[in-house]
Amino acid sequence: MKWRKYFIPTQKEDPKEAETISHKLLIRAGFIDKLASGVYTYLPAGLRVLKKVENIVREEMNKAGAVELLMPSLQPASLWKETKRFDKMGKDMISFIDRHNREMIFGPTHEEVITDIVRRHIKSWKQLPIILYQIQTKFRDEIRPRFAIIRAREFLMKDAYSFDIDEKGLDNSYDLMKETYKKIFERCGLKFTIREAESGVIGGKFSEEFVAEGECTELEVGHIFKLGTEYSLSMKAYFMDRYGMEKPIYMGCYGIGVSRIIAAIIEGNYDDKGIIWPLSVAPFTVDIIPINMSDGFILNASEKIYNELNENGIDVILDDRDESAGFKFKDADLCGFPFQIIVGKKIKEGKIEVKKRRYNKTELVDFEKVNDYIKDAF
Amino acid sequence: MKWRKYFIPTQKEDPKEAETISHKLLIRAGFIDKLASGVYTYLPAGLRVLKKVENIVREEMNKAGAVELLMPSLQPASLWKETKRFDKMGKDMISFIDRHNREMIFGPTHEEVITDIVRRHIKSWKQLPIILYQIQTKFRDEIRPRFAIIRAREFLMKDAYSFDIDEKGLDNSYDLMKETYKKIFERCGLKFTIREAESGVIGGKFSEEFVAEGECTELEVGHIFKLGTEYSLSMKAYFMDRYGMEKPIYMGCYGIGVSRIIAAIIEGNYDDKGIIWPLSVAPFTVDIIPINMSDGFILNASEKIYNELNENGIDVILDDRDESAGFKFKDADLCGFPFQIIVGKKIKEGKIEVKKRRYNKTELVDFEKVNDYIKDAF
Repeated sequence: MKWRKYFIPTQKEDPKEAETISHKLLIRAGFIDKLASGVYTYLPAGLRVLKKVENIVREEMNKAGAVELLMPSLQPASLWKETKRFDKMGKDMISFIDRHNREMIFGPTHEEVITDIVRRHIKSWKQLPIILYQIQTKFRDEIRPRFAIIRAREFLMKDAYSFDIDEKGLDNSYDLMKETYKKIFERCGLKFTIREAESGVIGGKFSEEFVAEGECTELEVGHIFKLGTEYSLSMKAYFMDRYGMEKPIYMGCYGIGVSRIIAAIIEGNYDDKGIIWPLSVAPFTVDIIPINMSDGFILNASEKIYNELNENGIDVILDDRDESAGFKFKDADLCGFPFQIIVGKKIKEGKIEVKKRRYNKTELVDFEKVNDYIKDAF
Repeated sequence: MKWRKYFIPTQKEDPKEAETISHKLLIRAGFIDKLASGVYTYLPAGLRVLKKVENIVREEMNKAGAVELLMPSLQPASLWKETKRFDKMGKDMISFIDRHNREMIFGPTHEEVITDIVRRHIKSWKQLPIILYQIQTKFRDEIRPRFAIIRAREFLMKDAYSFDIDEKGLDNSYDLMKETYKKIFERCGLKFTIREAESGVIGGKFSEEFVAEGECTELEVGHIFKLGTEYSLSMKAYFMDRYGMEKPIYMGCYGIGVSRIIAAIIEGNYDDKGIIWPLSVAPFTVDIIPINMSDGFILNASEKIYNELNENGIDVILDDRDESAGFKFKDADLCGFPFQIIVGKKIKEGKIEVKKRRYNKTELVDFEKVNDYIKDAF
């Protein structure tokens, strides 16, 4: 990607209402943009991070044998009346009357919808166990949206639902998801603790939450629940066991705040200059900075490195803006790209500088060997 | 993927309200599931198709130099009052009053939001031209939702917006998008015509729509608009030109019904047995069918083929259900996988049967050469 043709609107000033470091840096680095209270656009670089986190979640869920689908956000309120959760959700839930006078809601979570799908399509023990999941936008009319994407009104979640023939099966599914969550958060570069939690409006008998370490104490990034037969009994989700007996399905549910992970990563990875992305989720691994845009030799070398890294599948941005080197260094630090390749006068001796953002350390590297240097770092 | 651990709930009967072949087949093949009028879940196999279409759209947009971001669905109604579209949209638009008494809407389209982002972050001719796009769920309270995902109330769209310094620039961006659309629809295996169209509530001076060929005449799958300065004037999206003069930005907008493409593909690719997916969007390229689940030799060979194709990056499903061969053949035809690999008694002579779904033709192939056979077909 060339910076001039891209869109990373960095800014010098902290946003006024920002209380957390992740909020400040996400706005200042041009990763997100506020549209309304608790409602944010993911600008191009922010979306790249979101997609990387999303893919880590997807890969680990698939490895665990979970199956992805995509449920609608629009849901009939009638489903929520079956489980008596319509009133429990209160004003957090966004509802409206459609033009045909039906009461509809925008899904803050999907236990009702997935249970409805399963009760109609899963009839036999032969179809169990199964874990179904989706990565989808959720809506909650939070009374006090804050900390940008940490407590937003519209956010991306991974929600998974397990279906088993008995309690022992549920325990297995639950343990599998717990192990999967550990792998996901580790790959995202998050430090976290797991603690027993209140099940709240989701219900069930037992739940644990994954809390990311950092200054902002809000950040639950994952929450897993043993629901048991609560939903299957109220919605009549039964299956036929191997002896021909009708029994309620045992359920679990497992949420990850995909967009919230991004804020949690920043809360644990920054310095006074800006964000320090872990390699696994960085929007670009390398930022190439030509220090003088009117020097053909420097530009030419920068283009060569850019093309070579691109061809080797490394996510790279070339800062081709007509700005001073100092301006570009500041933006590079702010945006937190793991490597800065600085192409300056030493290029005439075949050397470039590589700065590792995390260690704030610069090394001279042979121009010819830069690709190997970056690859070795992985 | 193994069929038993997956979730493709096929059914024999056509859904009652289905008027189009794509509606019937999507439901019968277990690709989508109805939750409410005009509201559908993408079941796992359906989601795989959706993701493949989405990726074709993304790849071609990126090749054209367009930059992806992700805007929120939730939007303040006030933005729509600036352009006077709030009333024009009428009951198609879903709106609600939030808990802090602000009027909000769920985005049926995003001209207002993108123009708001651009007016705040793009100030100079140096930042232009740029084409920004997103792939995102849209909401419209259709008066008569029908044909399943063809006219739904919740659907996936790619919407792009171009920003130029003058009319000539807009013409260039428009032409670039038109060429990009042709490539996208061709890669999806769609036959289409382009015709001049009414601009309707989107506005602007000139628009063309891409109409997929097929029996169902609704299927506009793409619509491109020259908006000119309509939005930039009403929302004050100005830039400074190279002479320091403030001027309104010239805009275009470009929509593709991502979920609608799926229905359009089916309308042009089916027979009396079911769907015939083009290779580019098939949920699985190959369905391996062991004709007897109690024959260890057959099972073993099926597993070997499954592993080999998987390792070679071919999307493959193994139908390991404890069902008759006839039952599996019917499902394979219905779901429209391009190749069926039938592992039967001839495996003892080192032979398997490969059926090409589109041509309904079966060939005997050496067990050892099946991977090359499939690869050659691409």
